Amino acid sequence: MIIRGTTRLIAHIGHPTHAFKAPMIYNPYFEHAGIDAVVVPMGCESAPYSEFLRAVFRLTNILGALITMPHKVTTLELLDEATPAVRIAGACNAVRKSRDGRLQGDLFDGEGFVHGIRRKGFKVDGARALVVGAGGVGAAIAASLAAAGAESLTLFDVRAAAATLLAQRLRHHYPQLRAAIGTNDPAGHDLVVNATPLGMKEDDALPLDVTRVAPETFVGEVVMKEEMTPFLKQAAARGCSFQVGTDMLFEQIPAYLEFFGLPSTTPDKLRALAQISYS
Amino acid sequence: MIIRGTTRLIAHIGHPTHAFKAPMIYNPYFEHAGIDAVVVPMGCESAPYSEFLRAVFRLTNILGALITMPHKVTTLELLDEATPAVRIAGACNAVRKSRDGRLQGDLFDGEGFVHGIRRKGFKVDGARALVVGAGGVGAAIAASLAAAGAESLTLFDVRAAAATLLAQRLRHHYPQLRAAIGTNDPAGHDLVVNATPLGMKEDDALPLDVTRVAPETFVGEVVMKEEMTPFLKQAAARGCSFQVGTDMLFEQIPAYLEFFGLPSTTPDKLRALAQISYS
Repeated sequence: MIIRGTTRLIAHIGHPTHAFKAPMIYNPYFEHAGIDAVVVPMGCESAPYSEFLRAVFRLTNILGALITMPHKVTTLELLDEATPAVRIAGACNAVRKSRDGRLQGDLFDGEGFVHGIRRKGFKVDGARALVVGAGGVGAAIAASLAAAGAESLTLFDVRAAAATLLAQRLRHHYPQLRAAIGTNDPAGHDLVVNATPLGMKEDDALPLDVTRVAPETFVGEVVMKEEMTPFLKQAAARGCSFQVGTDMLFEQIPAYLEFFGLPSTTPDKLRALAQISYS
Repeated sequence: MIIRGTTRLIAHIGHPTHAFKAPMIYNPYFEHAGIDAVVVPMGCESAPYSEFLRAVFRLTNILGALITMPHKVTTLELLDEATPAVRIAGACNAVRKSRDGRLQGDLFDGEGFVHGIRRKGFKVDGARALVVGAGGVGAAIAASLAAAGAESLTLFDVRAAAATLLAQRLRHHYPQLRAAIGTNDPAGHDLVVNATPLGMKEDDALPLDVTRVAPETFVGEVVMKEEMTPFLKQAAARGCSFQVGTDMLFEQIPAYLEFFGLPSTTPDKLRALAQISYS
């Protein structure tokens, strides 16, 4: 990849930066496709973040920003415009500037998740889904399932208030959706999603009782530590179809490319070009 | 070159960015040497510059900044510490942050120029030099010639005040130096330098009367539009030894690498690796 004076920037902002994956996914694609742009990791702690985000959008060659921990929530108050996905999830991970200088925020985790399960043959329209975990990514997935026509959403979080607030926001934006607080019992659902961090650490408990998942149920995972988490392994052993965590990652990137006004491509192409391996 | 979450940044700040050369010089060297750093062009106009420079130095993975037009002069007031080269030239093109958070500025144009002519066998110590052009680069070259032991410096600029102020700053910092305002007549000098932009445009006049340059005189050029400018061509035809503009560029880069705390290399190696051609 050659960075030139003409190269435009996508600032990848968060802290710490060492585990950032986006540069090794976007940049090989940009090189391959002849797109004169580069994703640059920018380590920014909470205190200087507001000032830095505003400053970086004053650059003449800025294309946009990818926002990650710990700024996904605080970014909301810096935006001039936010999509329903952002408002429902209360989080934002992509920012661009409109021609008239307005900062616009969006969130594509949920869209990536839904694209992925649809490509694997799962019919979202009319589905009864259980989302375990009502944090940023769980909220994003719930919002995208609602937008894609899911019939009902059951929400569960050990922090009950998070699930309650998410259900309220969902009902506000999607009045015909049946969004309810429930338990993490997967029985009776067409789709079951682990949107908790459980599975990132060796000795984590499972997010739910997999023996209660029916073989016809589709199972989704957000943890990317390994392709087959203990949760997915057990679901696969029961005969369930499933989607791994990195699929959500690669499936959402075409949406970011479009958001930044760049030529897009397929998740499979992006995965083939990426300079990282997910063990 | 792979940009990772661990990659540290050198912000290359100026406007417009399209003619920036540094990314295509530093980055191939970083890749070759296994240095996990990247030079990133950041287009910044005058209005947001102060705020942006401060903000970019809040990043956790910032190594430093290369400053170019139109910010070389205004950077001075943002520094906590400046070298004599910066104070004499009234310009700064490299900024780093000390461990205790102080912004430190330096200027290596002149050092690059002097390194280069020394490597070509010119003895600066005791030399009588004429510097035509007392702008940023002329001032930097004059300051470095003074630091390197030149016996006398004759300064000329069509903007007489610029030359007068430069002579005053030089005498202040180097009391034993003979720094005088003169004409652009090259006769009687061991070293003659074009530090004006003359030669960048097709129909530019020569910066001085080359028929008055003695064959023993060493001739230096700062214009990089082509290796052999009309001025250099005529001097070479008279038998003068000379240094081309891009030599100054490549000769100064080891000093920047050292300034940023990175492993350094030779100008020849940098030139061999660079991904640009200078016609």
